[in-house]
Amino acid sequence: MNTREDLPGIVGNGVYFVRWTLISLLMGTVCGLVGTAFGFGVAYSQQFFRENPFMLFLMPVSGILIVLVHKALDQVGNKGTNLILESISSTEQIRFSTLPCIFISTILSHLTGASAGKEGAALQIGGCIGNTLGGLFHMDERDKKVAIMSGMSGCFGAIFGTPLAASMFGMEVISVGVAYYAALVPCVFSAFIGSFISSRLGLHGEAFTILHVPEFSLKPAALIVLLALLGAFVSVCFCILLHEVQKLYKAKLQNVYARILTASALFIGLSLVFGREYCGAGFNLVEAAMEGNVPYEAFLLKMLFTAVALGGGFKGGEIVPTLAVGASMGAAFGNLLGFEPSLCAACGMLALFAGVTNCPVATIFMGFELFGFEGMKYFALAVSVSFALSGYYGLYSSQKFTYSKTRTEFINRKAH
Amino acid sequence: MNTREDLPGIVGNGVYFVRWTLISLLMGTVCGLVGTAFGFGVAYSQQFFRENPFMLFLMPVSGILIVLVHKALDQVGNKGTNLILESISSTEQIRFSTLPCIFISTILSHLTGASAGKEGAALQIGGCIGNTLGGLFHMDERDKKVAIMSGMSGCFGAIFGTPLAASMFGMEVISVGVAYYAALVPCVFSAFIGSFISSRLGLHGEAFTILHVPEFSLKPAALIVLLALLGAFVSVCFCILLHEVQKLYKAKLQNVYARILTASALFIGLSLVFGREYCGAGFNLVEAAMEGNVPYEAFLLKMLFTAVALGGGFKGGEIVPTLAVGASMGAAFGNLLGFEPSLCAACGMLALFAGVTNCPVATIFMGFELFGFEGMKYFALAVSVSFALSGYYGLYSSQKFTYSKTRTEFINRKAH
Repeated sequence: MNTREDLPGIVGNGVYFVRWTLISLLMGTVCGLVGTAFGFGVAYSQQFFRENPFMLFLMPVSGILIVLVHKALDQVGNKGTNLILESISSTEQIRFSTLPCIFISTILSHLTGASAGKEGAALQIGGCIGNTLGGLFHMDERDKKVAIMSGMSGCFGAIFGTPLAASMFGMEVISVGVAYYAALVPCVFSAFIGSFISSRLGLHGEAFTILHVPEFSLKPAALIVLLALLGAFVSVCFCILLHEVQKLYKAKLQNVYARILTASALFIGLSLVFGREYCGAGFNLVEAAMEGNVPYEAFLLKMLFTAVALGGGFKGGEIVPTLAVGASMGAAFGNLLGFEPSLCAACGMLALFAGVTNCPVATIFMGFELFGFEGMKYFALAVSVSFALSGYYGLYSSQKFTYSKTRTEFINRKAH
Repeated sequence: MNTREDLPGIVGNGVYFVRWTLISLLMGTVCGLVGTAFGFGVAYSQQFFRENPFMLFLMPVSGILIVLVHKALDQVGNKGTNLILESISSTEQIRFSTLPCIFISTILSHLTGASAGKEGAALQIGGCIGNTLGGLFHMDERDKKVAIMSGMSGCFGAIFGTPLAASMFGMEVISVGVAYYAALVPCVFSAFIGSFISSRLGLHGEAFTILHVPEFSLKPAALIVLLALLGAFVSVCFCILLHEVQKLYKAKLQNVYARILTASALFIGLSLVFGREYCGAGFNLVEAAMEGNVPYEAFLLKMLFTAVALGGGFKGGEIVPTLAVGASMGAAFGNLLGFEPSLCAACGMLALFAGVTNCPVATIFMGFELFGFEGMKYFALAVSVSFALSGYYGLYSSQKFTYSKTRTEFINRKAH
């Protein structure tokens, strides 16, 4: 070891650190402000929808508006979160118009109760901000990728109030098995600043209480593993459902207006039949599930509502609906077996999130941030088992599996 | 997406899961039992040393015995934890005799107060168990690597009582930037079972209390970042010191007996001059640091004591001494600036651990398991900054840096 020849390396690290600290401060601030505006926008739209039941029937109008916004901003065929992932793993470019497009479309979707999230949208908004700042600072392609990850983490942290999960998610989601640690400081700084700003501005993150966490022993551990097996299976089904419904819409209806109008009609019909609990992002279901109060079929219905809305062109992302499906599934499992529905709701939620995003570390972090540290051992079991068994399915078809889930080998394949 | 063609994949995952669940149950049980025996062995040796001050002067005897054990088991020149890392990243083979060798040598080291850990030894013992079970089950090379990681996690979890950190450490330490997720279930299961068994048998993990965690805001965050900068610098210094002292011993003294006798003489001399606080693994220093009660120079002295003992041939590993150095450094920093010495001790400890092991996720998990979740934001800052700035230095020269710490690029170099 020659320590002298490495001095430029250490100086280089210092330069890297100062540079990215400054950039992340700016990134976190911009993402925090934009994310807060977006978060409040979504929250008000959701509230407006709840207070004005007729809004559901305006879904065709919001649908048409969403298409018009996409046409006006030349974003028809926008690949959503996949575009952001590809901008990091390949040479795909993000255009700034993605930001207003997803911002407005998500709010329109929530105004009329579509079953859609907001975190996927936040990842896209953050990615755009990162890309734009990268351009402003004349970054080369590699640094711009770090900036995009930092932006994703910043906005995710601002909107969801889980900065640690947000930091890790941006690095972990692109290539399964590879952690882009070059983005560690930029992601951590931007997520914490983003979340700090949004909470100071009054946008509070989610947090739930597990009613009772039993002492760790063989029986509850085995039951949680069983739940995670189910979670892996449901994850795969949910991914297939989302992708197949979208394909079906595209195959049967070439015209984007026809597609979103059909989706609106179907969604309104479903809501009239099954009720409005399945409209919106789904935190209502998570809350009910944490108290063990959801019907057995809730997770299936939430999957269906989400596939119908997102597949037809409504916007916002799949993350919160995924959490709602998982929590409902977990509570149903717990109620069925008479075993801790509240803990099962939490573990089901994490199992499903790990299964569809293939990000086990971010999911475990999210578990601690949403539910506290007490259930740690159960969370770790639920996440690792569901991750291992959900195969190469995922929400994002642009996600890469760089390493095998079952063998220590390089595979470099894409998600289903 | 053709779901039918993927059925063998899902069935394959099921077979993988059942197979590895059974193997990990066995692995966790064996590692839990052996780890507990080892843990109690070390604990009794440490107690015996404390109660019998003359033991310090028997260091030359324990030194000679260590060399004899190595000769008898044909383990002279054993590369320690590096051997285990190489057995995973290359075709290097582990022999079973490593297990009794490191088991006995570590206990002999602790009986006479050498400044050495026990977790490095646990990693080696666990790796041997994994390798042996892999052989028993006729595993191919790739599966044997997973078995070795699972064994490492199992023993680490049993001895340290931090199963989540233990699970991740085994997967994260080999190649920085690559998470060997194929080992996720085998590592999680074996670490949790190992830790469950050891705690049932009365071997309790470590846990510390941070006296006060201030509300997260700019000033404390900036101070923790400053501490992490210092932590990165001390990490690099500690790695260089350990490696250079070992080289110096080897260069000046060809004979292994002469080397360990010299180390004993130096160590006894240092203990007579500076006191016995720096003998042993160092949890006494961590405890004192958590209350802000360590001298400013403690971290330097602990570095020196450890380099003198380990470089000369005493055994046990570097992990607990690293934690002691980090906690003492953190408390000194806090006392100097009049800012939360207890929180600084915790963050300093994590910063140093992240800096020397290059395992940020395992380090953050360890933070939660040792100190609880309240200080999460500070832990994340300390770990990410120290990781980013500690360069390509590390405790283990066989550790690979697969991806750059500062650029999104493949570099595939070894640690200094």
